[in-house]
Amino acid sequence: MKLQLALDIIPLNEAIELTKKVKDYIDWIEVGTPLIKKEGIRAVEEIRKAFPKETIVADLKTIDAGKWEAELGFSSGADIINVLGCANDSTILNTLKIAEKYNKSIIADLLGVENKVIRAKGLENLGVHYLGIHTASDEQTRGISPLEELEIISKIAKIPLVVAGGINLRTIDEILKFHPDIIVVGSGITKAEDPEKTAKALRDKIRKFSRGKGE
Amino acid sequence: MKLQLALDIIPLNEAIELTKKVKDYIDWIEVGTPLIKKEGIRAVEEIRKAFPKETIVADLKTIDAGKWEAELGFSSGADIINVLGCANDSTILNTLKIAEKYNKSIIADLLGVENKVIRAKGLENLGVHYLGIHTASDEQTRGISPLEELEIISKIAKIPLVVAGGINLRTIDEILKFHPDIIVVGSGITKAEDPEKTAKALRDKIRKFSRGKGE
Repeated sequence: MKLQLALDIIPLNEAIELTKKVKDYIDWIEVGTPLIKKEGIRAVEEIRKAFPKETIVADLKTIDAGKWEAELGFSSGADIINVLGCANDSTILNTLKIAEKYNKSIIADLLGVENKVIRAKGLENLGVHYLGIHTASDEQTRGISPLEELEIISKIAKIPLVVAGGINLRTIDEILKFHPDIIVVGSGITKAEDPEKTAKALRDKIRKFSRGKGE
Repeated sequence: MKLQLALDIIPLNEAIELTKKVKDYIDWIEVGTPLIKKEGIRAVEEIRKAFPKETIVADLKTIDAGKWEAELGFSSGADIINVLGCANDSTILNTLKIAEKYNKSIIADLLGVENKVIRAKGLENLGVHYLGIHTASDEQTRGISPLEELEIISKIAKIPLVVAGGINLRTIDEILKFHPDIIVVGSGITKAEDPEKTAKALRDKIRKFSRGKGE
């Protein structure tokens, strides 16, 4: 099980400084959609420069221009990009062609998909590498979590799951039960009083759980 | 009927130079999603600086963080932002709150929506100002156009329609028949051999059609 740090609504220089502090406790670094829309693709380039060896996820939320956006992401240093599962199949397939060219991967995010179970299987068949279970931040404020979706999709998915949406030190235990492959934590670390201590505590929880599972 | 120029896959400085040449023939300037993802929100700021009086549409394709993204768009000089119709109602409502604060407008794009008729009415009820009928560029290469959707949605929508997707000098006549409020042309102008002449010809067609309708 991996821990992915999402850098969303945070200035780029602060994002880099914070990531340096928590680097030892996280696995993947996500350049979030807000950071990309604010700074442009240079957000990915700068984070790649600062962390040459780490796995970087660019949350481009691609819904069109699949080849162009995938080229943009991978050529800027991303190892994985997020596309929207509600994009047309043609767009998903175009991102996959570019991923293959770069030997990189695609997460298809189920955010915005109406029939998530049917589409999850469809996205698997198209060949995406990961499925994203994702509760929108605007929904989190209404008390909604990714738990229910995670429970359902984890029963039917054959490819690794990435789960995101308001996960923090208080809520991670519930998530761990469903054993997702990647757990995304954003403000749960970036807005924590002590990000380093919090990232370490999250890492400890994941390690403890994985050990219990004999991983 | 308005003509909107979409600036998508084109370097920012070229986009500004081209827009200067065709400005007299177009109504609204759209800062496209690829330009925003590549350059960041400064694409909107620079185009606002270059065209202080024009109506600027920022195609942010918001699907989460509604308040934050709407703030980003409107505070950078956009008059109108695009959100994805497949976003949760909470996200749409959050963008509308910020639009109200700035006295600006929201286009809800039906791209990626599964049941477009039902959702179009839902989006109207939420209070969006425009509905976007939009064929993805990845679908256009498969010979798909926005015509069929436009025909259906134009029968049921009570708010203005923005139609986009591969529209050019050859295909605009078919679109005009359905009398959308805003016609978006991107590469049909930006990749034309003579963008100025093409924009003028598109404007002439719209004017001629509107006159026939007594507008």
